[in-house]
Amino acid sequence: VALTRAEAAALDARDPLAGFRERFVIADPHRVYLDGNSLGRLPRGTRDRLHRLTGEWGEQLVSGWHEWIEAPTRTGDAIAEVIGAAPGEVLACDSTTVNLYKLVHAVLDAEPELRALATDRDNFPTDRYVLEGIARARGLELRVFDSDPLHGPQPADVPRDALTVLSHVAYRSGARADLRAFGGRIVWDLSHSAGAVPVELDAAGVELAVGCTYKYLNAGPGAPAYLYVARALQDRLRSPIQGWFGQASQFAMERPYEPAEGIVRFLAGTPGILGLAAVEEGVRVIAEAGVEALREKSVALTELIIALQDEWLAQLGFELGSPRDPGRRGSHVSLRHPEAWPICRALIERADVIPDFRGPDSVRLGVAPAYTRFVDVWDAMDRLRGLVERGEQREVDPTPARVT
Amino acid sequence: VALTRAEAAALDARDPLAGFRERFVIADPHRVYLDGNSLGRLPRGTRDRLHRLTGEWGEQLVSGWHEWIEAPTRTGDAIAEVIGAAPGEVLACDSTTVNLYKLVHAVLDAEPELRALATDRDNFPTDRYVLEGIARARGLELRVFDSDPLHGPQPADVPRDALTVLSHVAYRSGARADLRAFGGRIVWDLSHSAGAVPVELDAAGVELAVGCTYKYLNAGPGAPAYLYVARALQDRLRSPIQGWFGQASQFAMERPYEPAEGIVRFLAGTPGILGLAAVEEGVRVIAEAGVEALREKSVALTELIIALQDEWLAQLGFELGSPRDPGRRGSHVSLRHPEAWPICRALIERADVIPDFRGPDSVRLGVAPAYTRFVDVWDAMDRLRGLVERGEQREVDPTPARVT
Repeated sequence: VALTRAEAAALDARDPLAGFRERFVIADPHRVYLDGNSLGRLPRGTRDRLHRLTGEWGEQLVSGWHEWIEAPTRTGDAIAEVIGAAPGEVLACDSTTVNLYKLVHAVLDAEPELRALATDRDNFPTDRYVLEGIARARGLELRVFDSDPLHGPQPADVPRDALTVLSHVAYRSGARADLRAFGGRIVWDLSHSAGAVPVELDAAGVELAVGCTYKYLNAGPGAPAYLYVARALQDRLRSPIQGWFGQASQFAMERPYEPAEGIVRFLAGTPGILGLAAVEEGVRVIAEAGVEALREKSVALTELIIALQDEWLAQLGFELGSPRDPGRRGSHVSLRHPEAWPICRALIERADVIPDFRGPDSVRLGVAPAYTRFVDVWDAMDRLRGLVERGEQREVDPTPARVT
Repeated sequence: VALTRAEAAALDARDPLAGFRERFVIADPHRVYLDGNSLGRLPRGTRDRLHRLTGEWGEQLVSGWHEWIEAPTRTGDAIAEVIGAAPGEVLACDSTTVNLYKLVHAVLDAEPELRALATDRDNFPTDRYVLEGIARARGLELRVFDSDPLHGPQPADVPRDALTVLSHVAYRSGARADLRAFGGRIVWDLSHSAGAVPVELDAAGVELAVGCTYKYLNAGPGAPAYLYVARALQDRLRSPIQGWFGQASQFAMERPYEPAEGIVRFLAGTPGILGLAAVEEGVRVIAEAGVEALREKSVALTELIIALQDEWLAQLGFELGSPRDPGRRGSHVSLRHPEAWPICRALIERADVIPDFRGPDSVRLGVAPAYTRFVDVWDAMDRLRGLVERGEQREVDPTPARVT
């Protein structure tokens, strides 16, 4: 592990993915951005793609739909490649929240013997909010169970008589679940793994999943999300939100609703073509880099964070809030400290390092292996160390104004 | 009315909105585009705006959310201006389908005495599909009633014990409902009126509405839609799709879901910022032109279509499929003809006129008063007349391949 900056620079020099950094806009080279797990960087290709798309709109007008209509499935197939799904199993559309809502209702409709919903208390709030709403609407019990704060939910935590929603990588601790070890009816949220961590849905026998595209898939703020339904389940499920883009015969306007064959039945309204174009571009870069290579670099980067945490930060009151075993970790590391919030403020305002704060006490450092360098991690940790040594977190305005 | 091209050109010369055409990309001046009611043209400002937005993403990265987070309400307020609503009553988000789904469930949850859903058979299919799905899920009756084929649903058609969904302007006939005349619990779909026809939601006492932005609001293919909830109702309703952007305290991640105050409670997942920027730009042009001026020109344009239909087309087997009274009409006119489908094909392939076909027998001509000229209408009608006189509709391949 690189304990000197020169060693970190040597790792960058040997990095087979080093060239991918140039595929992204790096507006300020001094700033170290370790929040690509909240919002990924802008790929250079996306600007051109959006320019081409508005060109199509301006020139082809409504006839552009002959091509645009394929965007949700074509983009879904591109995402499928980086999450280990087959073509026709992934659809890019709507938000993660709406997609989760659709899948949970679809399963409950198909399997009335499921009498409860479940998730872990540390799961991302929007997943829990969706379940709370569905539980109330359907008169079902929602079981919110405690899970290991460091290693996340385990297979034994999953109730057999419930539909459970879990995150593949936990948004706070970065704990990574072993998909193959889990049984039961589960909808996985891949938001914090897809694009940086291999997912392998089909190989792991995963039935249902959703995820966002604006983190490691670099599709931009609020870009369309996706949903995955294993082929074998598709014809048994139907979306509760019936819209004309999910209808079997979209332009036979006089008939009752009948869901389309395959994954398209999970579309609802007119898909957002601008957003989907950005998703396709973002995913293209990740697919080109290759998930295995990205994972290898991501592990090396998070290992470097942990080594420097042990060497420099432990003595300053920091504690590792993520699994030490890289196999059980995603692509971010949480460093716990009682002053985490002002430390995050000081990092941003005084050290030009962008982390993310996650309550109650975590400085979350995300590495996006397509563009994060080893020297970025080294510099961030070095600036963090210096700042806390000097007590600068006590000099910033701790007013809680923040947005993810 | 202009029965010669010179007269049409004279109307353009006097048109106070003539300058607005330059605000849009007109890629092919010979092509007459009369399908802005399916997909509006690209405003020139939208390209620049998207370029600025990707610049913000690239430079500000996650901190861009300090501004982006206002996009759904800020864009909603801009839409409110052109549909006669107050600030805080409109939210730009999701698709029309998803927004309709949210509002219908919200009302049914708040008013369990509503034991049925209703719509007219001629309403846009996605509205009916949404209702079919909700009726099945909740065990409610769905009453699909016949309405006047030319003048659309009338106040007496609306059942008092049901929640009814109606279009303000009918997608096929162009019939315009008088909002003030209707009572009962109604969700209005404004997709075919907003931006070309005054809506005046508050003045008419409308309680609930949804609509798309890619027609007369020129926001681009599949751009985010909007929903309207009258202020007085907002706190009584809650969205069935509970997501973190509709939560009262978005970053207090440990609490149960509690809907935010006001219209924001109807947000679900992370809003699509790219799409919302395009909505804001599109709406800005329309607001600047002014709905009253747009309406005046729209009426004059549709009057010209009808005058030329009477003068030229009636003798060729065409029949007016829209109300003759401009007060009962939106911004498109349907011309019925037994060969409507091949006539539409021939118009596109041989005459460079873009209409829309609407089954079973309508050539739909939409005028977008911000950029459609009187000579455009005259040319389209002239080319249509010539084409049918020569029987060219019998020479095209009638293979039914089309997309709205």
